[in-house]
Amino acid sequence: MTVWHASVLTLFPEMFPGPLGLSLAGRALREGRWRCDTRDIRSFATDRHRSVDDTPCGGGAGMVLRPDVVDAAVGAALAEGEARPALYLTPRGRPLDQALVRELAAGPGVVLLCGRFEGVDQRVIEARAMTEVSIGDYVLSGGEVAALALLDACVRLLPGVMGAAESAEEESHGASGLLEYPHYTRPAEWQGRSVPPVLLSGNHAEVARWRRAEAERITRERRPDLWARHSGQETAAGRAIAGRPDAA
Amino acid sequence: MTVWHASVLTLFPEMFPGPLGLSLAGRALREGRWRCDTRDIRSFATDRHRSVDDTPCGGGAGMVLRPDVVDAAVGAALAEGEARPALYLTPRGRPLDQALVRELAAGPGVVLLCGRFEGVDQRVIEARAMTEVSIGDYVLSGGEVAALALLDACVRLLPGVMGAAESAEEESHGASGLLEYPHYTRPAEWQGRSVPPVLLSGNHAEVARWRRAEAERITRERRPDLWARHSGQETAAGRAIAGRPDAA
Repeated sequence: MTVWHASVLTLFPEMFPGPLGLSLAGRALREGRWRCDTRDIRSFATDRHRSVDDTPCGGGAGMVLRPDVVDAAVGAALAEGEARPALYLTPRGRPLDQALVRELAAGPGVVLLCGRFEGVDQRVIEARAMTEVSIGDYVLSGGEVAALALLDACVRLLPGVMGAAESAEEESHGASGLLEYPHYTRPAEWQGRSVPPVLLSGNHAEVARWRRAEAERITRERRPDLWARHSGQETAAGRAIAGRPDAA
Repeated sequence: MTVWHASVLTLFPEMFPGPLGLSLAGRALREGRWRCDTRDIRSFATDRHRSVDDTPCGGGAGMVLRPDVVDAAVGAALAEGEARPALYLTPRGRPLDQALVRELAAGPGVVLLCGRFEGVDQRVIEARAMTEVSIGDYVLSGGEVAALALLDACVRLLPGVMGAAESAEEESHGASGLLEYPHYTRPAEWQGRSVPPVLLSGNHAEVARWRRAEAERITRERRPDLWARHSGQETAAGRAIAGRPDAA
């Protein structure tokens, strides 16, 4: 079996695996459940100044990564005839969501291009059929931290990385399309604040109902966009979803 | 003047500053434009097993961080009477966007709680009036990479961190509410693909018009949600925005 394979193209190779060398992703890396190689974009420069960028055509601030340099870096990451998807991390991209994470985690791996400066020449994005992906509507100093987020999200879904209990939980949330209900643990009374009595009742059906209602309330209040999508699904799937006791 | 101050509460303190110790954020850290201290949540455990979590009330998978342990960690990060906002990074939270990044960067700093396991006891989130923030609709193995993203986004906006040219660019995009137009640099011809001729015309007004049209097209195609918001603003502000040559 081939191992899930991440190749990161960056001007800061020393940022990887970084935080992903620790905790869940780090253990999975040591166990050989995924591999991460990093390529320094600068090593693909062809002139004696090792320049990777140039001024933007049409003028303006910042510098743009050259198409020939980026193309060579992508080519070096891919084996002959290899079909791993290549992604460019940019605020202009398709928003990353759990559906895309699942799709990527189920595939052979990813080639991730981390931009810096103003951006990347659009021609190489087209020539390499790269998917532009955004981790959120904010601006980072480069694509590196975005790549770490995408990899962290994918790696935890790889076979054997999460325990069975965590995996079950994940499935449940994926199916419901709701934000999570609030969590409580011991002590039952803390600074005059009590755990909601239903959670201490031992009545599993009541607990499931309460959690479902809280998940719905929080989703409605905080994310009308998710709630609208969820309500649409609910109508379509009818009782099939609503009747599942673990669907919260 | 006080320096922008990030305190990170985590079970993996060795993940920080991590990638933020390099590049733009790293230089700013060495120049004293921000500071980052990390507190190990485990050091606030009070029992001899140093336990920080317990099983969820009401049952279910995973473990929940205890309210007393988290409360002690938040308390230790804040000086007497200090008003730094405390944020808990979780997919249940308010989506991080550039407006929130600007607000946080303009303030005294942040206290960031990174969750692990199933979650954090809701009572300490309420007691400490923490804002729940999500960096996107995907699930990470913990809040650490989310904290890195939030800090990276904030730090680049701190005074003196970006050059004047980059700052001007940032302002321009912030004002327009559109995704960026595509970028091109030399060579003008590469693998049979040409830079759009208008960008080589030297006609600044034509270049600005083309970029504006491309930014609008890409936003319409990729992000109907942003386009709808932008169109609303446009109608309200009328010619004031549309007439600005640098608004792309």
